[in-house]
Amino acid sequence: MSDTQERVVVTEVGLRDGLQSIDRIMSTAFKRRWIDAAYAAGVRHMEVASFVPAKLLPQMADADDVIAHARTYDDLIVTALVPNLKGAQRALDAGVQRIVAPISVSVAHSLANVRKTPAQMIDAFAAMRELIDGALNAGAPRVELIAGLSTVFGCTLQGAVPYADIAALARAAVQAGADVIALGDTTGEATPRQVGEIIELVRDVAGDRLRSLHFHDTRGLGLANTLVALQHGIREFDASLAGLGGCPHAPGATGNVNTEDLVFMLDSMGYDTGIDLTRLLASRAVLADALPGEPLYGYLARAGLPKQFAAARERFASSRASAQSCQPSQSSSPQVLQ
Amino acid sequence: MSDTQERVVVTEVGLRDGLQSIDRIMSTAFKRRWIDAAYAAGVRHMEVASFVPAKLLPQMADADDVIAHARTYDDLIVTALVPNLKGAQRALDAGVQRIVAPISVSVAHSLANVRKTPAQMIDAFAAMRELIDGALNAGAPRVELIAGLSTVFGCTLQGAVPYADIAALARAAVQAGADVIALGDTTGEATPRQVGEIIELVRDVAGDRLRSLHFHDTRGLGLANTLVALQHGIREFDASLAGLGGCPHAPGATGNVNTEDLVFMLDSMGYDTGIDLTRLLASRAVLADALPGEPLYGYLARAGLPKQFAAARERFASSRASAQSCQPSQSSSPQVLQ
Repeated sequence: MSDTQERVVVTEVGLRDGLQSIDRIMSTAFKRRWIDAAYAAGVRHMEVASFVPAKLLPQMADADDVIAHARTYDDLIVTALVPNLKGAQRALDAGVQRIVAPISVSVAHSLANVRKTPAQMIDAFAAMRELIDGALNAGAPRVELIAGLSTVFGCTLQGAVPYADIAALARAAVQAGADVIALGDTTGEATPRQVGEIIELVRDVAGDRLRSLHFHDTRGLGLANTLVALQHGIREFDASLAGLGGCPHAPGATGNVNTEDLVFMLDSMGYDTGIDLTRLLASRAVLADALPGEPLYGYLARAGLPKQFAAARERFASSRASAQSCQPSQSSSPQVLQ
Repeated sequence: MSDTQERVVVTEVGLRDGLQSIDRIMSTAFKRRWIDAAYAAGVRHMEVASFVPAKLLPQMADADDVIAHARTYDDLIVTALVPNLKGAQRALDAGVQRIVAPISVSVAHSLANVRKTPAQMIDAFAAMRELIDGALNAGAPRVELIAGLSTVFGCTLQGAVPYADIAALARAAVQAGADVIALGDTTGEATPRQVGEIIELVRDVAGDRLRSLHFHDTRGLGLANTLVALQHGIREFDASLAGLGGCPHAPGATGNVNTEDLVFMLDSMGYDTGIDLTRLLASRAVLADALPGEPLYGYLARAGLPKQFAAARERFASSRASAQSCQPSQSSSPQVLQ
């Protein structure tokens, strides 16, 4: 894509968040195929596993093998979710470039999710920081430590999450050594105006460390929320191929934002994701093969790319030098009313 | 709702655009029930019929009866779609307050839809203007004439629609006497950045007459596009209960934006739609009864209102006096990390 385009990072999290939310185990061979297909489509950021006890989450028992395969691609940034110090050591040993620690703002969710209070998770997070710094000092490659603040936009257990709690936890995560603050709408309750407010709130505390947003599409607002985050300067988003991991037809569904639909929106606006939509759509075949009968979601997969898409994409891409303007570019020839 | 809230008009168009797109005929009795249920939920703008030959569209054969029922509610604004002068006379006789004439920017779509070129539709529109003015001079109540520009954001027959064509047609519609310019994403191809550009383009031509947007949710961008339109000052939107009228599971699907999901987003942002979401969701029962087996869509209907919704709505409503600010209001008590 053109140099004039602004880059947006889309991290495929289906291999972790998507698979974690379904009962069926995807074999390691299929996970490898998924990684291959996503890489072939241009995806260069993937969260491929979590390091949790295999008896709690058998889906992630092959984390080492999956990461090893992902790491065969030199320019692929590989992330793992890690809830504790032991997991962080395993992630470092496996060779990930990014570690995300889930830190819930909601006490109830934090206890349910990681059996720690938010304060205890901050302590664990600080210990991960020390571990990573120690490894770095011993000559290991640099690993980014991401505080994945969860239930930021609401909590099904607790209800509303006070803004003061979000700010306090973001501050604590920065003080504990977060390289990056990511905000997660864990339960799919975020709404557009709230998203803008919370981004500004956390930016006041975390500055440029606030970098990434993680939306679920439970109430159909995933892309509208993403749009607001883009307007507030966010340039990294998590998404799942085919919206894997949640069933929009079931009450309380919590599937991630659909990767294809997200990339379509970003592309249509002239952002450079580096991802080829046609290949990305084709990669859904891996899921169909691996999980027969599992519902695969996505508007674009159903409706297809519009005829005008290629032209619009090029027009916006070439006009991104003046991208802040809302003025239309009247480059087309008139033809109506002749 | 509070006086501090900004009003957004949601026009239920399911009775026209929704039903028009399905094969099965809904009985007049069920149409009356739908109007009653929507009214009970607070909907005060409905497009309830179109005046086209019954042999072409049997679904709309009862337009007179349906409008007569809608007109029993004094404060309900009733709209009909009208493609020609004869239809306009019928709509006036039936007592509608608003007439929408579909004027396609795409020549190919215009010919397919109304068997007229855009220029011929402008002529027909000017004749409708004369008819309405004549009726007004003869003592009839005021009726708004709306130019419903269609295929504005793309056309499945033509592909991209040149901006110059949109501007030329909007100008012609204003000159022909449009009270209101409405923009329709007839084929569900609109994307967020394009929406902002086209609104500014048409506003340059039509000023405050540009008032209403009509989105389909074919590619999952209906609410993101609505958000952009809100940011560009639009305060009227069309929508269909349960997204009736298009099947998102079929290629080329073209269902309207879902009324419940749209109202949820608007409510969550502190806008006053006058619509009660719980009652609106309950009104889906009319469709289930009238059209058994017909798929009913909607995220909110599946996931339900989040716990925090009532509180967030009140907070945004009470803060709308300073609504332009993105600064968070830290009204909640801290409780984390204690």
